[in-house]
Amino acid sequence: MAPVKVFGQAMSPNVARVLVFLEEAGADYELVDIDFQAKEHKSPDHLARNPFGQIPAFQDGHVVLFESRAIAKYVARKYKTDEADLLREGDLSEAAMVDVWTEVEAHTYSAALSPIVYERLIFPLMHGKPTDDKVVNESLEKLRKVLEVYEARLSKHRYLAGDFLSFADLNHFPYTFYFMATPHGALFESYPRVKAWWESIMSRPAIQKLSATMTP
Amino acid sequence: MAPVKVFGQAMSPNVARVLVFLEEAGADYELVDIDFQAKEHKSPDHLARNPFGQIPAFQDGHVVLFESRAIAKYVARKYKTDEADLLREGDLSEAAMVDVWTEVEAHTYSAALSPIVYERLIFPLMHGKPTDDKVVNESLEKLRKVLEVYEARLSKHRYLAGDFLSFADLNHFPYTFYFMATPHGALFESYPRVKAWWESIMSRPAIQKLSATMTP
Repeated sequence: MAPVKVFGQAMSPNVARVLVFLEEAGADYELVDIDFQAKEHKSPDHLARNPFGQIPAFQDGHVVLFESRAIAKYVARKYKTDEADLLREGDLSEAAMVDVWTEVEAHTYSAALSPIVYERLIFPLMHGKPTDDKVVNESLEKLRKVLEVYEARLSKHRYLAGDFLSFADLNHFPYTFYFMATPHGALFESYPRVKAWWESIMSRPAIQKLSATMTP
Repeated sequence: MAPVKVFGQAMSPNVARVLVFLEEAGADYELVDIDFQAKEHKSPDHLARNPFGQIPAFQDGHVVLFESRAIAKYVARKYKTDEADLLREGDLSEAAMVDVWTEVEAHTYSAALSPIVYERLIFPLMHGKPTDDKVVNESLEKLRKVLEVYEARLSKHRYLAGDFLSFADLNHFPYTFYFMATPHGALFESYPRVKAWWESIMSRPAIQKLSATMTP
């Protein structure tokens, strides 16, 4: 069977979000580079994959997808096993808890944490743009409140959706990985349950392997 | 069986996102008001439902949820029938297309359209804050590009995820409904496929019934 294709760079957090689930599944995949300098993301070939001209895009035979969270769910469903059922769609209440914490990642956690990654790493290193300290400080204040809620949640359950590793946990990996490379990574020290949860994610062989290709 | 409970006001777009799927299912539900002026959203009872103190929250027996998109999916799964299978989770590629266009709603469509709703309706009417024309104009420019992509998509398929009505389409209802009440609603006239798609959503009896309770 031909390997599935992921279009984009492992260094991009949204591409890495897809790769996490492929690595976790031990899936055979091909990473196809999209050259932004050559405007390949706006080429007809790429716009046929993603009409908004962004990465990642994904191809599995006739199935062509975009939007990292949608692709990641496709991968989680396709490679689902009894041992690795990351979405739990067969169980109404477990699936709902996976969805709740997946939405929290998108709309609350990453909304607070990712601006810090952009201001401290991506803008200065990739675009030569200086850090906006006001954005960083406001985001840190939001992030502390989010981490308090996570600390309480992870005091009750081993993982976000319950006592099972799920899509919701792994979905936190890419931005948190880069956040840890900013000068603010030590913030997690104040939240011992969150820190232990993050370390348990980082210790996974698939995550270790992927991390090595993402070093900022 | 006790009716499920939705905490919040029908006028809130994120509460309405949940009500759409309950109305479509013909489900028995109770809408429980959360009094923001009395800070009820920050009360221990409500924080036990949603640790971030927002609406909507949801209760179905022992299942307590927050995050509108997660609740909406729970409702779509719970009331799924052969005729109304809005998530298509039994079909790998159909489920993926539903996910793609659900993510587009959250991260691209509503990211462009909802600031216009906030600036033109919610901020002036609810908070006495004047409209920021710069935000409106920038958002309109983004929205035009998004609607071009939607027009192309809806020229190939009757609905966003394919030739079947799905979660992705109905999920567009709340913010679009309020957008239509702004002075910019006529923008949809320039995109005939999008306009026809929107009209087909608006003509649904469940949507008609819900709309009547949301009038700005």
